[in-house]
Amino acid sequence: MSANNMAYADLMAFQRETEALGQVAGRLGWDQETMMPRGAAEQRSEEMSALEGVLHARRTDPRIAEWLAQAEAADAVADPVAAANLRHIRRSYARQVKVPGPLAQALARVTSRAQGIWAEARSRDDVAAFLPILAEVIQLRREEAACLAQGGDLYDALIDDYEPGATAASLGAMFDAMRPRLVALRSAVLGAAYQPAKLEGSFGQDAQMRMARDLATAFGYDWERGRLDLAVHPFSSGSGDDARITTRVVESDPFNCFYSTIHEVGHACYELGIDPDYRLTPLGAGVSMGVHESQSRIYENQLGRGRAFTGWMFGQMQTRFDGFGLTDADAFYGAVNRVQSGFIRTEADEVHYNLHVMMRFDLERALIRGDLAVGDLEATWNDRFAADFGVAVPRASQGMLQDVHWSCGLFGYFPTYTLGNVYAGCLNVALRQAVPDIDDHLARGDARAATAWLRENVQRHGGLYEPREVVRLACGFEPSEGPLLDYLEAKFKALYRL
Amino acid sequence: MSANNMAYADLMAFQRETEALGQVAGRLGWDQETMMPRGAAEQRSEEMSALEGVLHARRTDPRIAEWLAQAEAADAVADPVAAANLRHIRRSYARQVKVPGPLAQALARVTSRAQGIWAEARSRDDVAAFLPILAEVIQLRREEAACLAQGGDLYDALIDDYEPGATAASLGAMFDAMRPRLVALRSAVLGAAYQPAKLEGSFGQDAQMRMARDLATAFGYDWERGRLDLAVHPFSSGSGDDARITTRVVESDPFNCFYSTIHEVGHACYELGIDPDYRLTPLGAGVSMGVHESQSRIYENQLGRGRAFTGWMFGQMQTRFDGFGLTDADAFYGAVNRVQSGFIRTEADEVHYNLHVMMRFDLERALIRGDLAVGDLEATWNDRFAADFGVAVPRASQGMLQDVHWSCGLFGYFPTYTLGNVYAGCLNVALRQAVPDIDDHLARGDARAATAWLRENVQRHGGLYEPREVVRLACGFEPSEGPLLDYLEAKFKALYRL
Repeated sequence: MSANNMAYADLMAFQRETEALGQVAGRLGWDQETMMPRGAAEQRSEEMSALEGVLHARRTDPRIAEWLAQAEAADAVADPVAAANLRHIRRSYARQVKVPGPLAQALARVTSRAQGIWAEARSRDDVAAFLPILAEVIQLRREEAACLAQGGDLYDALIDDYEPGATAASLGAMFDAMRPRLVALRSAVLGAAYQPAKLEGSFGQDAQMRMARDLATAFGYDWERGRLDLAVHPFSSGSGDDARITTRVVESDPFNCFYSTIHEVGHACYELGIDPDYRLTPLGAGVSMGVHESQSRIYENQLGRGRAFTGWMFGQMQTRFDGFGLTDADAFYGAVNRVQSGFIRTEADEVHYNLHVMMRFDLERALIRGDLAVGDLEATWNDRFAADFGVAVPRASQGMLQDVHWSCGLFGYFPTYTLGNVYAGCLNVALRQAVPDIDDHLARGDARAATAWLRENVQRHGGLYEPREVVRLACGFEPSEGPLLDYLEAKFKALYRL
Repeated sequence: MSANNMAYADLMAFQRETEALGQVAGRLGWDQETMMPRGAAEQRSEEMSALEGVLHARRTDPRIAEWLAQAEAADAVADPVAAANLRHIRRSYARQVKVPGPLAQALARVTSRAQGIWAEARSRDDVAAFLPILAEVIQLRREEAACLAQGGDLYDALIDDYEPGATAASLGAMFDAMRPRLVALRSAVLGAAYQPAKLEGSFGQDAQMRMARDLATAFGYDWERGRLDLAVHPFSSGSGDDARITTRVVESDPFNCFYSTIHEVGHACYELGIDPDYRLTPLGAGVSMGVHESQSRIYENQLGRGRAFTGWMFGQMQTRFDGFGLTDADAFYGAVNRVQSGFIRTEADEVHYNLHVMMRFDLERALIRGDLAVGDLEATWNDRFAADFGVAVPRASQGMLQDVHWSCGLFGYFPTYTLGNVYAGCLNVALRQAVPDIDDHLARGDARAATAWLRENVQRHGGLYEPREVVRLACGFEPSEGPLLDYLEAKFKALYRL
């Protein structure tokens, strides 16, 4: 082996341990949201901080710069996998060395604590209890962004962590292009003469969880390498052979549990579908949040909320639950896809969902740029919500306290949800061309053919390509918001008999 | 602050992060035994190995030697807490630097893998499937012991990890002194004309777990800082504000679940009872396995299996379970304490328990010294068992595959169980002198007065004193096997009407 190839091997061995420790941090995060006793929160924040310190020291280890310089001159770079590994390590290293260790540790410590405070505050609708720690989180993220941006836009620097290649300007332009058609569709649908009926009744937790497990199975979730638990805010966690999901149960609204589950199954299937050769390497995780969200959203919406799959679900629910006021599969399809101005993003229908995201995008951009003070956030949220959705926010748990993201420091993350929807719209077109009988499978409660196509064309690549590139390669055309908007208009105009 | 006191502060700050990372490793271990999806085992062993590598690098960091040299000359040493911290760090450092990093990592990796293989092998009574990895574990532990012993006895070097100050010779001498009285008691009891009745019936998992939770509460377990889950082999895990316990359920034998729970509650109460000022310092964990076991065993036996507490349990079981063939509290007390030659150590009665331990002590000492080959272990185990217990081992899951310990590399650990029993015997004498009405509390299902006395006299000290010293201070007399043997003879002669 040449010295240069040796440097690549050393770098990858070092990186492998770092990736393994990153998985450990992810597992701790999962534990914190699902299993940890409440009284352990303070201690846990020290544990997380210590682990974050180790990870930061490794990710900024000066040997990485030396190994990179040598390895980038090596024969190995001719190999696309090696080239992609080096590209990821180079980018991560360049980011990490810009952030001082104590700042990274403070962020880990404060966000770990903030999540507990947020959960408490949310349960009591107590904005005041959350604001001081939120201000601390924002201040730390701004400091971090300033280190990263080096004179550039702070918010762009944060977006780059979740969606390499995207900017507030490019996302904002896309959102501007989407908004008129979404607003028009929303208005048409809400004003339609025909309105589908709602699901009625009470649905026991155990039965919901059993059905959630069966839904995960229907989408091909690998139970040997995952598990399903309850959490305040559903999430998925882990890569390689340990990708866990969570959901929540609302007795009056089983769709909350079911579609959260299918959504997280999409995320987990992406991680579990990555080429096993990439495990514990930079390519062994989803390439960006937007592409990740494309998987969760196509599972949840284009597949899980389609007429074919909901037909099967209707039959399942008839055998599992006592009366819910819907007697045929078309009415059930209508109830699943009922459009209304709700307060909660994660419960929003497909027409409203992106409007929730666009609002958060504007608010958090203002918070990070310093144009909006934390003390004004609740009022600004509520004003904007009334303007966009036409209803007043009744309490903070249905307003600015609803999402976990900001307590975790996830600023710049929300726009990737809509980007994911846009990518899902593109992938749906390509999937249906490639597997023309997919609805026949879905009508039998079997989404594994869709998982297989997505695994082959998107998931298995992990971090091999740039985010937008992997979607373009899978679709065979340049991704844009058009297919999503066409799909939404066709679906909801038919459903609302417009 | 003087330079020497500064060195102490730096050392303790560094140590605090190491302790936090040690807690993370403990949490990963807990996850592996309770929550981890089966298919994640291989990846998990890489994660554990990476974390073990980090811990080893920290524990052998050359700066520790410098800090120690300066700090040991500091004013701080006049403070007994600082002196104890330095003593622990000095001892740990001296041990750690003797073991090469790659060996420590290999041990972490192999034992992580071995636990999965053991669990599989045990479920299929498949000794052959377990032997190759067991041989690997033993070989690695022997290599480690050789590094530590530096010409001394290999097995002593391993014992020292669990019970500083104890040796095979001192433990062997104590076991030799105990054996004749135990053998005589066993023989008298098994030959007694009166034999208590057995518990009969089937006891559902959910009802057992509800009762287990109430038992933990009765002993003062702090649910805000702990939780109870199922595991193949019950264990407790974690220090500070996160001390979790596990149990198992056998439908025909609820005592298995109940007394495993009480036992692990004893361990967890020890950790949770340590002075909060010691959290994430070397004093913030139980001082030795023997002292740990003294807490779990006094909870389980002298308190939990006493006439007073079992009287309350009888009432509870009458209201929770349909018929179990015992109609009065004395008969129930007899069933709880029934003596018989069983195969499983963790299910053994108080008379047999230490004989199980003595057998493992002899076998593992021979394995580590190289006097017993792994290939001969099953036959040797079975021969020895037949000689000591008078019955033939029917299958390996009831013989050499029953305990998780060896798969974890825990050689030198078993004797601390009997040392813990001996200490529990001493503490029971002192507790009953200090709290003369303790049986009145226990008869009401309330063991919190015992927990309070143990917390004040043993638990809160954490690692402040040497193991034997903390027991001596609590008791006010020199610990010995006498009180345990007196207690056993009095209890079982009365119960068996001898």
